[in-house]
Amino acid sequence: MAFVLLATAVSSAQDAAGQAEAPTFRLVIHGGAGGIRPETLSEERQAEYEAKLTEALRAGYEILAGGGTSLDAIVAAITIMEESPLFNAGRGAVLTNTGVAELDASIMDGATRNAGAVASVKRVKSPILLAQRVMDESPHVMLIGEGAEAFAEEQGLEMVENEYFRTSQRLEQFERYRQRLEEGSSSEQGKLRRSLEVSPIPGTAPDDAVTSNADPDIVAGEKHGTVGAVALDQHGNLAAGTSTGGIAFKRWGRVGDSPIIGAGTWADNETCAISSTGEGEYFIRGAVAHDISAMMRYAGLSLREAAAAVIHGTLTNMGGTGGVIGIDREGNYAMAFNTAGMFRGTIDADGRVDVKMFGQ
Amino acid sequence: MAFVLLATAVSSAQDAAGQAEAPTFRLVIHGGAGGIRPETLSEERQAEYEAKLTEALRAGYEILAGGGTSLDAIVAAITIMEESPLFNAGRGAVLTNTGVAELDASIMDGATRNAGAVASVKRVKSPILLAQRVMDESPHVMLIGEGAEAFAEEQGLEMVENEYFRTSQRLEQFERYRQRLEEGSSSEQGKLRRSLEVSPIPGTAPDDAVTSNADPDIVAGEKHGTVGAVALDQHGNLAAGTSTGGIAFKRWGRVGDSPIIGAGTWADNETCAISSTGEGEYFIRGAVAHDISAMMRYAGLSLREAAAAVIHGTLTNMGGTGGVIGIDREGNYAMAFNTAGMFRGTIDADGRVDVKMFGQ
Repeated sequence: MAFVLLATAVSSAQDAAGQAEAPTFRLVIHGGAGGIRPETLSEERQAEYEAKLTEALRAGYEILAGGGTSLDAIVAAITIMEESPLFNAGRGAVLTNTGVAELDASIMDGATRNAGAVASVKRVKSPILLAQRVMDESPHVMLIGEGAEAFAEEQGLEMVENEYFRTSQRLEQFERYRQRLEEGSSSEQGKLRRSLEVSPIPGTAPDDAVTSNADPDIVAGEKHGTVGAVALDQHGNLAAGTSTGGIAFKRWGRVGDSPIIGAGTWADNETCAISSTGEGEYFIRGAVAHDISAMMRYAGLSLREAAAAVIHGTLTNMGGTGGVIGIDREGNYAMAFNTAGMFRGTIDADGRVDVKMFGQ
Repeated sequence: MAFVLLATAVSSAQDAAGQAEAPTFRLVIHGGAGGIRPETLSEERQAEYEAKLTEALRAGYEILAGGGTSLDAIVAAITIMEESPLFNAGRGAVLTNTGVAELDASIMDGATRNAGAVASVKRVKSPILLAQRVMDESPHVMLIGEGAEAFAEEQGLEMVENEYFRTSQRLEQFERYRQRLEEGSSSEQGKLRRSLEVSPIPGTAPDDAVTSNADPDIVAGEKHGTVGAVALDQHGNLAAGTSTGGIAFKRWGRVGDSPIIGAGTWADNETCAISSTGEGEYFIRGAVAHDISAMMRYAGLSLREAAAAVIHGTLTNMGGTGGVIGIDREGNYAMAFNTAGMFRGTIDADGRVDVKMFGQ
């Protein structure tokens, strides 16, 4: 109660100073971009995604509405998606070519440009929580592998066996891929490998095998189920975070853009907060998240203009697919993608939820 | 010979079209920025650095002068520095808190914006060669840890025991740190830990203990001995690469900016090629290498203006120290740093070598 009164007083003072509007806030989330179409996603499954995205938005909203930070709001939203097997992050992450979940995440604070990132962790229940601890409790930005897990244990974060992440759906998917690789000729193996690494969008993907043959409910989330969130809080601070299991059947310790500050995640109060999802290699090569910020800062573009220019210009021209969500300091937001769909949603200061998954 | 004639013909055609100058090329390298001062570096050691930097420049020059690519030239220069114990990369890398060398590297092709990066590899003789293979021979950009080493073995790259990297100087340095940590009070441990992570520059570093107590010859290279190279070749293509052992006594699988595309390395024919060295955490949080490129592209700054703005503006304002080398498509180059010195050098199309190490 005391807080509410104080907030009102501050708001009045701002009004007196000529700022007509009360402090605003907003949360925007994504659950991955890819071949998400009405015909490949049952209505029942659509309802599940809508319910989970809404739950994540409301969790972050409670924090923002109570005067909490954008960092805490995005972590609250992302952990809910990490815990849901609907997305390729945390529980339900895709499996490597040896059947293991290897998780990546990153977070950035727009007020300080402090950041935290982790890659290839296998036993930390919430990779985004670990990224936040790296930012807050270590002198470093990026920790990887077993070293990152040792830090997580020192921090008292919840540790789990890798089995926790491996859902029966992902194990079936893994087994199907493994069998097809074993059965196929070497040229088919190359095709399958390639199909696992590209988006199943007609006209851009050289091979549609996975899209046409596999369980469509799984396909929708399997290669682009990365989750992320960006927020503006009542203090005017931006934050961004991203969490992922990477690509199915990955090997050689492959890391995508999700733990790369400037590619998968970026936040700067002077411009915007961005979280990416898609073919990580292209997002790294385009420094996509930072490029949107740079276009705003140096070329004077709006967030929506910059996000569209990078996704429909740079990324598309490179042959990459995926999308971003973004928010600026005025609470304007953007959701740009060049895939068939993107699981996405936003909640505003009045608690109005808007969740979508198919084309723009 | 045939190639030389062809190159001459092309050059003449360009002259006829009004382009007065023959194709130019240039290589720029660095061997780390930090507390490099005449009073902390013996003349004998200075001569060793000058000789090795010159050797690296000449190796890259031979490739560029023969019509080779900027990518091959930077790899040739970097591998020579990796093999030298003078620098904190490859052989002579600093050791982690368990006495192991963990190496990071990245490379980027300005013509295609293709890139390769490796982090935390312990058995690959040349991390920059592995980064180049990741770029050329895998569908990925970043591979880490044992997975990256498995890829290196598949590629037939030279593997070594970790002992290869551990020079007697680094083992002595490691032992000295370990003893000081064991003997010191917890507050001294904190100070030492901090001193290991910041640059020993008066006025910016909160603790000068390492600078004043340790072997000055070692100090000069120990925290900022990352190596890197950028080049423009006769075909007009830019490339950049970086290789490092990271920071001494690092733990938790810490990774700095050197393997992060956009922070430690960036190359884009439309703007510039950049290699960074310094306190990696700040370079990641500033997306330093990509930010220089973005300032050129979107704000119309020259390479030197952009490099100075980022190093003496953004980086310094964040409290970070280090430097960058850069080159643009006209062969203009930049060497910017906010530390006392930076090991650096350049060689132009006429084979003129310019090597420096102290203040600008």
